[in-house]
Amino acid sequence: MNRHLPTGLQELDPKAAHLCLGIENFITSELQTSLEDTVLLVALSGGVDSSALLIILTCLAKKNGFCIHAAHFNHQLRPEADAEETHIRQLCSSLNIELTTDSQDIAAYASGHKLGIEEAARLRRYAFLESTRLAVNADWIVTGHHANDLAEDVMMRLIRGTGWPALGGMQGKCNNRKLLRPLLTTPKDDLISFANACSLTWCEDASNIDKQFLRNRVRSQIIPLLCKENPAFLDATTSLWKLAQVDTDHWAEIINQHLQKTDFDSPKLLKEDLSSMSQATRLRVYKAVLNSMGKGQPLQQNLLALDTAWQANVGGKVVQFPGNKIATIRKGTIYFSYQ
Amino acid sequence: MNRHLPTGLQELDPKAAHLCLGIENFITSELQTSLEDTVLLVALSGGVDSSALLIILTCLAKKNGFCIHAAHFNHQLRPEADAEETHIRQLCSSLNIELTTDSQDIAAYASGHKLGIEEAARLRRYAFLESTRLAVNADWIVTGHHANDLAEDVMMRLIRGTGWPALGGMQGKCNNRKLLRPLLTTPKDDLISFANACSLTWCEDASNIDKQFLRNRVRSQIIPLLCKENPAFLDATTSLWKLAQVDTDHWAEIINQHLQKTDFDSPKLLKEDLSSMSQATRLRVYKAVLNSMGKGQPLQQNLLALDTAWQANVGGKVVQFPGNKIATIRKGTIYFSYQ
Repeated sequence: MNRHLPTGLQELDPKAAHLCLGIENFITSELQTSLEDTVLLVALSGGVDSSALLIILTCLAKKNGFCIHAAHFNHQLRPEADAEETHIRQLCSSLNIELTTDSQDIAAYASGHKLGIEEAARLRRYAFLESTRLAVNADWIVTGHHANDLAEDVMMRLIRGTGWPALGGMQGKCNNRKLLRPLLTTPKDDLISFANACSLTWCEDASNIDKQFLRNRVRSQIIPLLCKENPAFLDATTSLWKLAQVDTDHWAEIINQHLQKTDFDSPKLLKEDLSSMSQATRLRVYKAVLNSMGKGQPLQQNLLALDTAWQANVGGKVVQFPGNKIATIRKGTIYFSYQ
Repeated sequence: MNRHLPTGLQELDPKAAHLCLGIENFITSELQTSLEDTVLLVALSGGVDSSALLIILTCLAKKNGFCIHAAHFNHQLRPEADAEETHIRQLCSSLNIELTTDSQDIAAYASGHKLGIEEAARLRRYAFLESTRLAVNADWIVTGHHANDLAEDVMMRLIRGTGWPALGGMQGKCNNRKLLRPLLTTPKDDLISFANACSLTWCEDASNIDKQFLRNRVRSQIIPLLCKENPAFLDATTSLWKLAQVDTDHWAEIINQHLQKTDFDSPKLLKEDLSSMSQATRLRVYKAVLNSMGKGQPLQQNLLALDTAWQANVGGKVVQFPGNKIATIRKGTIYFSYQ
């Protein structure tokens, strides 16, 4: 049971208050977001990350003028899932925060839809969060992803063959999905210290150590080796993430200029426009067009193959991309369509 | 002993000839280098990488109109070092290639100069290679670095906190150091198959499995985990490297425009110039200026710290960089100097 949880900065010890103010600064400066007069929907798993997030945001709410609503999705994947839901109900009740919950048999959903457990869980959880966000009229879905999650994400992207700047990791703010990740550069250890300083209790998710998931193998086997080589490895990935955000802005501006006149219903890139771009720009423009066509992430290799074919002026050449997308080169113009 | 080693493409089986032609294409297309009428100084360690490199270049020499000279540096670090030197003498003699050798007690040099063994070996080896290049009037020093070395290099840069595009790995061609790495996107397994197809014998370097070196820990512990997750991981890093080359060109052009008028004896960046740049450009311009000041690689964190201070317009703020370099902000202008 959580007793006497803090609900304002003045109730925190100096170190815990400092952490909260750092996160407030991250939201304002790095994510360039004002939370004044907003409603935040906090996604709660019951773990230390999202539980600490709830306390941190509670302590910042009055000062920053926002309201909090909480949401929990019970995946019915583990025997302790119901106990965790009870724990979350108590946490929200002791903080006087409204909670919306839903529950689904994700294992059945995954096998019914031929999806991996992780993917099924993510799909259904975010569908629930988005419908809850609309129902409670919230501005943002806020998740507890932290610097260790970010480092794992960078490694998974490196393994998969992601290009730059996407290699820098998940976004801190996604306007399309109405998603905020205010803890993204905060190490998990700092959240644990914060939780302990607040006498907060939380649930450990046993599936986090299940080696059947790539993420958990990255977490338990690869990241510790990297941290052993450089104890400041989390700082290094955080800096890489910051550079990636800066470069994302740089490229977004260039891409917008080039794609202003594009008809996204049947996108094509004209020979004369392509010829005026640097190769670096062309690769980003291809990616932006492909992303606008829906699901399926183009890999760096696919994009380079398309550009090599375009440079060699291979007439009639077709390059395939994930998501059944294809690019066809005809007389130096590239036409994008579905297979 | 190596007998009847191939000295022309027509002596190779189809797969081996295909490998050679792929490397010829890499030199021409990716490294954009013509080898016609050049002299190449091939750095030989006696391992499979550089031995295969020597055969590959020998088979391509007549067709591409270049000459080969070989160089071997004996580090006196292992009991088998002298036997390796003998092996290399025989290899070069059987290919009718002139060889220059030198020898130094690197362990003594390292302790005398308070350097790590690896750094001392690299410093002395490259000094020897460069003086040999000048002595034999060679155009390029050519090394046997391959795709596995590249993947290790990317990981080491990620661990260390390198920014983009340097994160993409070592250069395939370095005009300043007169260095070419024609095997950089060829997997080591392909070189071993090639060597076996040519009945080439080579020496295994026992120090490559010595866990006291970071590079060997990355090689033996980290890379295998990544390859297990994605069997095409070497392809993924090769694609990342290609994108990094493309982006390096993109940034080089932008940086050159901005630094045209810079006095590199006492470099400064004027407030009005900095204000006209995107943040992404500013970070690259800082790095270019710091690199022009000599040894010491600025980390991404240092560059971001400088830009944050510049944006906040912190008068008199001094940011320190490796190599005793400092940047001082005065009235929005950044002055670079030594401590």
